[in-house]
Amino acid sequence: MTTSKGLEGVIVAETDISSIVGDQLTYVGYTIDDLAENALFEEVVFLLWHKRLPKQDELTEFSEKLFSAMTISDDIFNHLEMMVKNEATPMDVLRTAVSLLGVYDTQNNYTDETINFERAIYLQGQMAAIITTYSRLRENQELVTPKKTYTYAENFLHMLNGTDITPLESEAFNKALVLHADHELNASTFTSRVCVATLSDLYSGMTSAIGALKGPLHGGANEQVINMLMEIQEVDQAIPYIKEKIANKEKIMGMGHRVYKSGDPRAKHLKDMSKKLTSKVGQEKWYQMSEKIESYIKEHKGLPANVDFYSASVYHSMGIKHDLFTPIFAMSRTSGWVAHMLEQYRNNRLIRPRAEYVGPTDQSYKPIHER
Amino acid sequence: MTTSKGLEGVIVAETDISSIVGDQLTYVGYTIDDLAENALFEEVVFLLWHKRLPKQDELTEFSEKLFSAMTISDDIFNHLEMMVKNEATPMDVLRTAVSLLGVYDTQNNYTDETINFERAIYLQGQMAAIITTYSRLRENQELVTPKKTYTYAENFLHMLNGTDITPLESEAFNKALVLHADHELNASTFTSRVCVATLSDLYSGMTSAIGALKGPLHGGANEQVINMLMEIQEVDQAIPYIKEKIANKEKIMGMGHRVYKSGDPRAKHLKDMSKKLTSKVGQEKWYQMSEKIESYIKEHKGLPANVDFYSASVYHSMGIKHDLFTPIFAMSRTSGWVAHMLEQYRNNRLIRPRAEYVGPTDQSYKPIHER
Ligand SMILES: CC(C)(COP(=O)(O)OP(=O)(O)OC[C@H]1O[C@@H](n2cnc3c(N)ncnc32)[C@H](O)[C@@H]1OP(=O)(O)O)[C@@H](O)C(=O)NCCC(=O)NCCS
Ligand SMILES: CC(C)(COP(=O)(O)OP(=O)(O)OC[C@H]1O[C@@H](n2cnc3c(N)ncnc32)[C@H](O)[C@@H]1OP(=O)(O)O)[C@@H](O)C(=O)NCCC(=O)NCCS
Repeated sequence: MTTSKGLEGVIVAETDISSIVGDQLTYVGYTIDDLAENALFEEVVFLLWHKRLPKQDELTEFSEKLFSAMTISDDIFNHLEMMVKNEATPMDVLRTAVSLLGVYDTQNNYTDETINFERAIYLQGQMAAIITTYSRLRENQELVTPKKTYTYAENFLHMLNGTDITPLESEAFNKALVLHADHELNASTFTSRVCVATLSDLYSGMTSAIGALKGPLHGGANEQVINMLMEIQEVDQAIPYIKEKIANKEKIMGMGHRVYKSGDPRAKHLKDMSKKLTSKVGQEKWYQMSEKIESYIKEHKGLPANVDFYSASVYHSMGIKHDLFTPIFAMSRTSGWVAHMLEQYRNNRLIRPRAEYVGPTDQSYKPIHER
Repeated sequence: MTTSKGLEGVIVAETDISSIVGDQLTYVGYTIDDLAENALFEEVVFLLWHKRLPKQDELTEFSEKLFSAMTISDDIFNHLEMMVKNEATPMDVLRTAVSLLGVYDTQNNYTDETINFERAIYLQGQMAAIITTYSRLRENQELVTPKKTYTYAENFLHMLNGTDITPLESEAFNKALVLHADHELNASTFTSRVCVATLSDLYSGMTSAIGALKGPLHGGANEQVINMLMEIQEVDQAIPYIKEKIANKEKIMGMGHRVYKSGDPRAKHLKDMSKKLTSKVGQEKWYQMSEKIESYIKEHKGLPANVDFYSASVYHSMGIKHDLFTPIFAMSRTSGWVAHMLEQYRNNRLIRPRAEYVGPTDQSYKPIHER
């Protein structure tokens, strides 16, 4: 059986985690509209892992464990310090630091679900710890410890900036995390499933997923979008800039999607937030520019804005450094990656497709001086 | 379109690197029998990357570059030293160290083929440097520098053991590297291709491939095989041991294959070497035990021995530590991983399949005290 290029439209597994039907995305049967409006990110994480929303005592326990997992160990801290000296980019640092967590986890049972749920919480907490620690280290700032009364979203911002978190920041960032949490068999999730289908460990799967997310066709797009907006700088330059890109046959980042052809259901939420937040900080131009680009591409190329398009101006308005946008995506998607890897373990088979050979045949070795 | 579980028999790409037809494996049209008999590993690496065998001056230049890439940098050395203190396992160390190479590579162009060929040589050299440096560090031994007159295979053994290399060692180890170099869309290679199809970088792809290879259903099997032989200890215990495993429905490592149903073409070469090497060191029992297991499983389960089965006793007879068997596989397969990633870049499309959702539908968020 030969499939379409890039496995487009090919169903490779069953899942009970998330679903895309038409232009709607659901997590365990809840629409993301519903969850983005109402749920805490930690509730969504619990939902993706346990397939139901937590009761109060469960959420309390879960949040406490997550909180405890948000502190960086001396080992990881020392490695991060060395990387700072080399001005490493945060996605490379994150991929390496998660791989290091595997180095320092001496339990060998890779597929035991009880141990893996503990590892999962640890990984989810450490993602916040690694990103914020690295960010503060490279800015020569003191580390900030998380607060027990804060949510996951609030603690990330608090540990990043050292400030108290406003209700608007809390709401916006929580919503962004909820919207990025899972997305069926996207490229990084699929990478992690192919990886652990050899019965390798969660750290290996996470490391491979981070590596895949880094790519500009996937999570790396949000950083490319903000770079584009910064290059454009003024609202009236947006269309000329885009026209030139199109003339040069360059892709417009944050546009297009493998599955959504008319609209990405996450984009409208991020668009609303972008409008609110850019106006709050008196920088409406990023929103206005984005809107112009969106309409133009929709009209002339028939492509919708995707999740990465408006998240760029959202994070920028929150004062977040641009090279942390993709790491933040990774932090949120950790919840989905782990859910999918646990699902893979539960009903595993090695993922090993075939290729069609189109190269030369019937060659035979000749001694080197006869070549 | 719904595919078979684990993408069995599903063709997902065209390739001109290697081919499996029936029970024969070819690299760029040369049978592995031909190459295992005649070629240096560095010739095979060149072949996989450039699709032809090198002329003398090309091989000289290529070998010199590879030689220069075999020295560990101070940065990586310092990180490795920290990992030694924690008694990290070599596959985790290797995954992390390769990720670190990405941290310290400050060139941003991920898909430029000229830069990637330089990176490829660097990666191929560094794999040997990382494994041998880590091994010597944890044994409290001085590092050994490579020799210009040695081949890649010889230098690895020399850097590992600090000894001069005998012709038999050189031949056996070179052959093992040639046999493991590529294998079409095996699980780790497929992982690396899914990863870089987001246009992520070679280090990310390598890191994800190492993570996948680690799994016991894939490269991790060779370490499991030697553990099994060590548990069995005596030739007459082999069959009782295997019978019990089968009765407990446990898998016999090193047996079975997704693609080869009657025989793995690599196994016979490793079997020959195992016979020679175990006898040379007066430890025929590992070979004899292996042969008994192979026949029994063939007869009772219809499964052939795969590449990992006899490589275990080969490496053991060469005095190599058991937890280095899978890293050595990774070092050889680096040549294939890189070839496949470069092929992916040349004709790229995001690899993003679909899942079939089988979970609950139409749920709606309830406030936490109502759950
Ligand atoms: C997301 C994406 C990788 C989907 O890829 P895909 O399903 O393989 O889509 P294709 O590359 O087959 O695109 C179909 C057509 O639309 C074009 N297209 C897709 N995305 C485009 C974009 N962002 N800008 C301009 N043209 C685009 C393609 O060039 C192609 O045109 P062609 O048929 O003339 O060759 C792709 O849309 C893209 O690269 N977008 C930009 C990166 C991005 O934002 N990624 C984040 C996704 S959440
Ligand atoms: C290599 C391997 C992963 C291929 O997997 P696969 O194509 O998905 O094969 P399946 O798991 O579908 O195997 C088919 C049947 O053979 C059995 N089988 C496969 N390998 C077996 C083994 N090593 N020992 C015992 N039974 C085995 C399976 O249990 C299955 O039996 P069932 O039909 O009664 O359930 C598998 O053979 C295996 O796990 N081998 C041991 C690990 C190993 O040596 N890996 C290195 C490969 S180079």
